[in-house]
Amino acid sequence: MTTIKEISAGELQRTASRYRRLAIGTLLSHSALQIFHGARLEGFPTLGIGRPGDSGMYRAFPLASPDRTLEVPRFDALLRPATQEKLLHRQALLIPHGSFVEYVGADNIQEKLRVPCFGNRATLAWETDRAKQREWLRRAGLPIPREIPRPSDIRGKVFVKFPGAKGGHGAFTAKTPAEFKRKLAAFRRRNKNAGEPILQEFLTGVRYYIHYFHSPLMERTEILGMDRRLETVDESYRNLPDPPELEFTVSGNTPVVVREKFLRDLVTAGDSVVAASRRLFPPGLIGPFCLESIYHPSRGFTYFEISARIVAGTNLYPTGSPYSAYLFEEPMSTGRRIAREIKLALEDKRLPELVH
Amino acid sequence: MTTIKEISAGELQRTASRYRRLAIGTLLSHSALQIFHGARLEGFPTLGIGRPGDSGMYRAFPLASPDRTLEVPRFDALLRPATQEKLLHRQALLIPHGSFVEYVGADNIQEKLRVPCFGNRATLAWETDRAKQREWLRRAGLPIPREIPRPSDIRGKVFVKFPGAKGGHGAFTAKTPAEFKRKLAAFRRRNKNAGEPILQEFLTGVRYYIHYFHSPLMERTEILGMDRRLETVDESYRNLPDPPELEFTVSGNTPVVVREKFLRDLVTAGDSVVAASRRLFPPGLIGPFCLESIYHPSRGFTYFEISARIVAGTNLYPTGSPYSAYLFEEPMSTGRRIAREIKLALEDKRLPELVH
Amino acid sequence: MTTIKEISAGELQRTASRYRRLAIGTLLSHSALQIFHGARLEGFPTLGIGRPGDSGMYRAFPLASPDRTLEVPRFDALLRPATQEKLLHRQALLIPHGSFVEYVGADNIQEKLRVPCFGNRATLAWETDRAKQREWLRRAGLPIPREIPRPSDIRGKVFVKFPGAKGGHGAFTAKTPAEFKRKLAAFRRRNKNAGEPILQEFLTGVRYYIHYFHSPLMERTEILGMDRRLETVDESYRNLPDPPELEFTVSGNTPVVVREKFLRDLVTAGDSVVAASRRLFPPGLIGPFCLESIYHPSRGFTYFEISARIVAGTNLYPTGSPYSAYLFEEPMSTGRRIAREIKLALEDKRLPELVH
Repeated sequence: MTTIKEISAGELQRTASRYRRLAIGTLLSHSALQIFHGARLEGFPTLGIGRPGDSGMYRAFPLASPDRTLEVPRFDALLRPATQEKLLHRQALLIPHGSFVEYVGADNIQEKLRVPCFGNRATLAWETDRAKQREWLRRAGLPIPREIPRPSDIRGKVFVKFPGAKGGHGAFTAKTPAEFKRKLAAFRRRNKNAGEPILQEFLTGVRYYIHYFHSPLMERTEILGMDRRLETVDESYRNLPDPPELEFTVSGNTPVVVREKFLRDLVTAGDSVVAASRRLFPPGLIGPFCLESIYHPSRGFTYFEISARIVAGTNLYPTGSPYSAYLFEEPMSTGRRIAREIKLALEDKRLPELVH
Repeated sequence: MTTIKEISAGELQRTASRYRRLAIGTLLSHSALQIFHGARLEGFPTLGIGRPGDSGMYRAFPLASPDRTLEVPRFDALLRPATQEKLLHRQALLIPHGSFVEYVGADNIQEKLRVPCFGNRATLAWETDRAKQREWLRRAGLPIPREIPRPSDIRGKVFVKFPGAKGGHGAFTAKTPAEFKRKLAAFRRRNKNAGEPILQEFLTGVRYYIHYFHSPLMERTEILGMDRRLETVDESYRNLPDPPELEFTVSGNTPVVVREKFLRDLVTAGDSVVAASRRLFPPGLIGPFCLESIYHPSRGFTYFEISARIVAGTNLYPTGSPYSAYLFEEPMSTGRRIAREIKLALEDKRLPELVH
Repeated sequence: MTTIKEISAGELQRTASRYRRLAIGTLLSHSALQIFHGARLEGFPTLGIGRPGDSGMYRAFPLASPDRTLEVPRFDALLRPATQEKLLHRQALLIPHGSFVEYVGADNIQEKLRVPCFGNRATLAWETDRAKQREWLRRAGLPIPREIPRPSDIRGKVFVKFPGAKGGHGAFTAKTPAEFKRKLAAFRRRNKNAGEPILQEFLTGVRYYIHYFHSPLMERTEILGMDRRLETVDESYRNLPDPPELEFTVSGNTPVVVREKFLRDLVTAGDSVVAASRRLFPPGLIGPFCLESIYHPSRGFTYFEISARIVAGTNLYPTGSPYSAYLFEEPMSTGRRIAREIKLALEDKRLPELVH
């Protein structure tokens, strides 16, 4: 790993403070419809950054389509100085989402991006590195899946995943060291640049993905919604499953609510994750994050992942969720919640607190 | 069974009639967020009753958090004379929900609770006793699962459950008398006080849980929503299932709509259940109830349970469901519907009709 | 197939143009609640056509119940001259839905129905004939399932279905010519009048049913929602499945959103289907349609069916979907969207453009 010469938070905060008419911008992917829709509801101009052909789909959803689009040949061309100049000229505050982080890279965002982003950029390094993620969840005191240090230690079913989320694509399961070896070789043939696999116990139970929002201005952590990701394996019972390397690809999301008595655990988990983030990378997590959990009657919740930015599951709730209704009178999506926090910060001249 | 020396409906009605500023109260569990949220939308003050530590979670949802909380060491401490005095002083009308009935007990509610409750307390005795439940559904003319009188009669898969809902925890299946015997012994080792098991044919098909509301004031039975409960077994296809005694534990709910032509059956079923309740325990059922059904193409709907109070599946719909939209202009949850009925009763000086 | 002496579009358009107070009408089934609810929100009087006993259920949903009901002994009695006279007298514009087409018949609608219908009646012939449906999807350039021309060609699992949707009832799967033969014989014994079976490769993956609306007035094709149909097979993992001929019966629908990057494919697919329809049966498709697709990580989307009228999955969204929120400020169901298009047409004196 190379050392990172970070662009200072101070520089980004000064930039953001000079904006006279802040535009909310993001890459045309992942949850951009929701982000633009929410920004518009809160009165912000919007700016999309997309490759040729990306903007067509967005025009099909006029209330969630960006006011202006900046065309780039590839998403990471966002980093080019000339592109950054244009974004600064348009007074863009960028919202990182899953594809944003995946295509531009957490390191690049910290080292090269002079355009202010919503949130704490350090968070992205902690969520994209699986070892750091585990460390974070452990520091928060949350139950996490047992890790299997060496393939030879495999006893019973293990879940094998690789660095980078990629929507579950490429994950597989194995029950013996031999099965693991065989599947890994097949996987490497198809994915030349895959990194080192992580092996975890395969957990049974019911998955819940909880959408949180930490507000530094209101000093509270909100539960804005909940979903279940729809993976190919979820329809495998309709037929013989396809090759296992494809089973866990996420293609959509479905809504869910959890038993009310479990909310106590989930509220506490969110608070603990925020508290731990303050110790690990001050000032800690800002804005949306998601805990990916699995509930089992005899074990309770185990938290197998954290996404420390807006997740695609929030796309279920552009007009609010069964939980956001208990927090806001208006229909409140996570995209709108981000814009609302920015608006509150502008009103109180506290925008620098949201840009780190 | 001991004979019940009921507190008379007349006493409770007189108490309720003396209230000048009625507060809607319930235990901090199950569907309390929705009940408080709905009460607030209809303009009522709210009162939570919770154990130490229960109220923290509720504060995380400010629009659904009770205005005041009364702390009790355990939920059934609600019955203590001093606690009841406080509740009466606060002019509480209590809303029974699943955990309320489970922790306080249907008999205790009828014998010892002098604080008025929404609805007909006799209903709770009919819904918590599985034999009475069957009798009720049979009197309503609804198809119910075949009961297997003796373990030696087991032919084909049976579903084994125990008194008290407990969210499906503890239910198991068996295919032979020997399997039943073995599993029952294992179950009894873990659950010393479990009552006598009920054996029913295991029904295949698609489960629908229909949320009804019977309004004595509007003289109609409404369908306010529908859900599917999410049981551990629902993700069992992702791996070898866990020990069977845990399979049916409910941890959440997901939304669903049914084919429109089936609504005719479901509307009729709701009306029949209300009509039967009037004959069995006058003045019959008041307010929310749920029919738990399973649809099979060759059999139609079979109704395997009834919950005669607000169910947790309604937590999906704090801003209304695909069915409540056809009944109310405003977003109408079951929690709000209860408060609306109380408000209408107060306006018309008919509150005693809702308290039995 | 008999030649069709169509009632001319001109005649229907002249009829519609003479209406002074247009009423939106449909058969009491399928998605009628949503259609009436939407019509009422847009200010139209509504007219139900139902058999004795049909209207009772509708009265249980007062905001979605028709203002007036015309009773017929059977749904196809709608075609009787006297009934048509009454409908014309009531100034009915009829909305075809799934049961409407199934019970009245696409040919009958084109040959015998003098009451104006919303949309292009030619569409119905193209959607009810499976060979034409395939032709349409192929002309639109969409990936479709491979067809197996002869039972002797069966290699691997095939999906066998029959003419007419009937909610998936009667479809079965087979893995060998012998299994196919055996199951077909059993099927024919139970269904004397079933037509010729269609054999397709059985596709694995995750199903998405996309609800579109093509607006000739706004010259755009909208995605108004998305669902997953709930088939008996979807709960088969809870037990041994029932006889296979029942597995695919649809009894309900559940909500879903798709990964945002897949929307590009789905927007394009909708546009292509509309463009192809203009070439195949000018002026092409008008109003709601649904593409039934299955997503697989290695293949992307395959489109296995098209429904060229409102589908029952839209019943999930009487107050709008996660997609309609990006198109309309108000809660917009497909039923309301139809009424909105008619209202816009009346305001602009363009109603004939919607009646073909």
